[in-house]
Amino acid sequence: MALKQNAFYAQSGGVTSVINASACGLIETVNKSSKINKVLAGKNGILGALNEELIDTSKESKSTIAKLRQTPGGAFGSCRFKLQDPVKQKKEYERLFEVFSAHDIGYFFYNGGGDSQDTTFKVSEMAKKLKFPLQCIGIPKTVDNDLPFTDCSPGFGSVAKYVATSTLEAGLDVKSMAETSTKVFILEVMGRNAGWIAAASCLAGNEFEDPPHIILLPEIPFEKAKFLKTVKEKTQRFGYCVVVASEGVKYKTGKFLADSGSVDAFGHKQLGGVAPVLASMVTKIGLKNHWAVADYLQRSARHIASKTDLDQAYAVGKYAVQLALSGKTGVMPTIRRVSDQPYKWTVSEASLKNIANVEKKLPAAFISNDGFRITNAGRRYLRPLIQGEASIKYLKGIPDIARLKGILVQKKLSTF
Amino acid sequence: MALKQNAFYAQSGGVTSVINASACGLIETVNKSSKINKVLAGKNGILGALNEELIDTSKESKSTIAKLRQTPGGAFGSCRFKLQDPVKQKKEYERLFEVFSAHDIGYFFYNGGGDSQDTTFKVSEMAKKLKFPLQCIGIPKTVDNDLPFTDCSPGFGSVAKYVATSTLEAGLDVKSMAETSTKVFILEVMGRNAGWIAAASCLAGNEFEDPPHIILLPEIPFEKAKFLKTVKEKTQRFGYCVVVASEGVKYKTGKFLADSGSVDAFGHKQLGGVAPVLASMVTKIGLKNHWAVADYLQRSARHIASKTDLDQAYAVGKYAVQLALSGKTGVMPTIRRVSDQPYKWTVSEASLKNIANVEKKLPAAFISNDGFRITNAGRRYLRPLIQGEASIKYLKGIPDIARLKGILVQKKLSTF
Repeated sequence: MALKQNAFYAQSGGVTSVINASACGLIETVNKSSKINKVLAGKNGILGALNEELIDTSKESKSTIAKLRQTPGGAFGSCRFKLQDPVKQKKEYERLFEVFSAHDIGYFFYNGGGDSQDTTFKVSEMAKKLKFPLQCIGIPKTVDNDLPFTDCSPGFGSVAKYVATSTLEAGLDVKSMAETSTKVFILEVMGRNAGWIAAASCLAGNEFEDPPHIILLPEIPFEKAKFLKTVKEKTQRFGYCVVVASEGVKYKTGKFLADSGSVDAFGHKQLGGVAPVLASMVTKIGLKNHWAVADYLQRSARHIASKTDLDQAYAVGKYAVQLALSGKTGVMPTIRRVSDQPYKWTVSEASLKNIANVEKKLPAAFISNDGFRITNAGRRYLRPLIQGEASIKYLKGIPDIARLKGILVQKKLSTF
Repeated sequence: MALKQNAFYAQSGGVTSVINASACGLIETVNKSSKINKVLAGKNGILGALNEELIDTSKESKSTIAKLRQTPGGAFGSCRFKLQDPVKQKKEYERLFEVFSAHDIGYFFYNGGGDSQDTTFKVSEMAKKLKFPLQCIGIPKTVDNDLPFTDCSPGFGSVAKYVATSTLEAGLDVKSMAETSTKVFILEVMGRNAGWIAAASCLAGNEFEDPPHIILLPEIPFEKAKFLKTVKEKTQRFGYCVVVASEGVKYKTGKFLADSGSVDAFGHKQLGGVAPVLASMVTKIGLKNHWAVADYLQRSARHIASKTDLDQAYAVGKYAVQLALSGKTGVMPTIRRVSDQPYKWTVSEASLKNIANVEKKLPAAFISNDGFRITNAGRRYLRPLIQGEASIKYLKGIPDIARLKGILVQKKLSTF
């Protein structure tokens, strides 16, 4: 074992507008530390380790690494890839340790959501079992905000700010058109099982009459008649109606409104298109409508990121290194809320053992009795997360993003 | 006739993220002038005149008027309403002049696109015919950029910046996911007959491999086989493919891919949903994809407006007043490009007679031979329009918008 070990870092699952800020926090902290040699980033997540495709971050300039803070997406490539069950099939794990050993990797940092934390936990358990000296730290990331034990998940605050801002802006648009044209506007946002993103749209308005007028959450079974009755009522009352719908809205039977029939690598149903389904219902009751599907725009919109979220994303990357350096493994940095007003937070930690594959849904106390609005308790929770603007530099009118060299370290092993 | 006449101002057609900046330019210029009494804004466009619903802008504070610069949508309400043919049916015109007379209105400012300029022209002709002392000035506005005689239309530059930025951001997202998940991303943008908005997405990239890889324009008949072949090629070559499609993409037969069957007040077909149509084609050739429909988000996104566009929107509002004060009628301020590099522009004017109902499409010289890309000439035209950021103030994490009192002047006439 070399005196100073390298760190492996990879990005996993759906990316966010600030996951690269976590990468930046991690790399800058490693580079300042005297105990870790350098960061080797997996090209396309854990696949980079399996395929021995390791990006040498020491070949990137300081300014490129700093620019990761204002670059959305996953700069090193992400993946949706589930490692096989280590009890049934050890081959993938053996390969990982073979690669880590060949490249003097003593630290494993995996930046992702629930599924990715599960991967990190499995790797840490296997390392212990095989007595392989590897400290495994998960770094939280998910726009869905569904990770337990952390007050919020880095990535969520920025999509929340995007959705609140877009709801406000599009709401003003439809309000101006409503007298003679569009009366109902439907915005579809992400959120398969947890309605956090749709809920955040409530921050668009401060007054009762402000959009959004109806929020559709996966937590609340969709009732068509009740929905259409409410659309009609709100339109009569306010002249227009803005609806924000989670992609994961489902009927009481569990059937998604937007079931497209296909599944991803983790077996999750792929969704999309709840907005046009709702729009066609609204058209049938005679109300002219428009609909938008934000899809990747919402989770990549670094230009409207939340400063709070960006700072937290950077902080968990930095803290992950500190945890590793203090000898921890099988843990993940978490965001701990110290107070609501003024909002104060700190970074803490949680064991990965209890995190894996648990989804934190929107608490019932955050949802109004009619199921269509967010309570004051919910607003109190959400509001701090979108505070502050994280302005970026522009070049020729568009965001000035990091363009990595992405130089791979020399392979030492045969192809997997 | 009172010594100092009032001005009528109204917003018409689809709104933009900077139409209120034109209102601001107009109102601030009137308020500084000693020749016009005050601005009465039509509530919901020309309907405000017909219904004698006139918002007294002198009741709004200076700071509220200033804040219009950072407020998207139509602050006074817009409309899609076509005045009847004055030859066949004079009733509406007679009502207009009755209202203008009752409220000492000597200036008519109408802020809109092609249809609205047609309305302004008809009102100016009728005023001449009836010898009613009314100076009619059109103020250009359209995200579609399809007005002739002006180098560009206020409203377009900001949607262009939104689309270029979103294409860049979502492009980074799909690039990170492509190895194991989404390979093709389709963004649907506005543009019924003219592909200016989709074309502007070309500014997202500077290198050949940068997104967007395919732009679908209404000017180029859609060929399914050629499209799918190109999607496949780009995906093989770059690992992923980003497609930006105009809502108005149509087959050689003229049939829109996204024909929803309904029409608006001007008889235009209402479109929406070309992205899911394209996505289902791409799914059938086995490429996993995601799609987004920006809809109202794109034209209301004041938070990412172009400074150039904002300045031009303000300038045409201001110049409209100057034209009126110099005794002009039946004209519209235009943007004249003085030079490309450095970009210099000035405000000029054009007669409304020749503007009405002419749509300026994307010139053939701006479209590559394969029909999927924008030429250097096109980029040279487009690039300056997205330059500069027009930052806004935020309040509690969301844009701080103008909230008008909207006090109506006392009615003097019976209901129309």
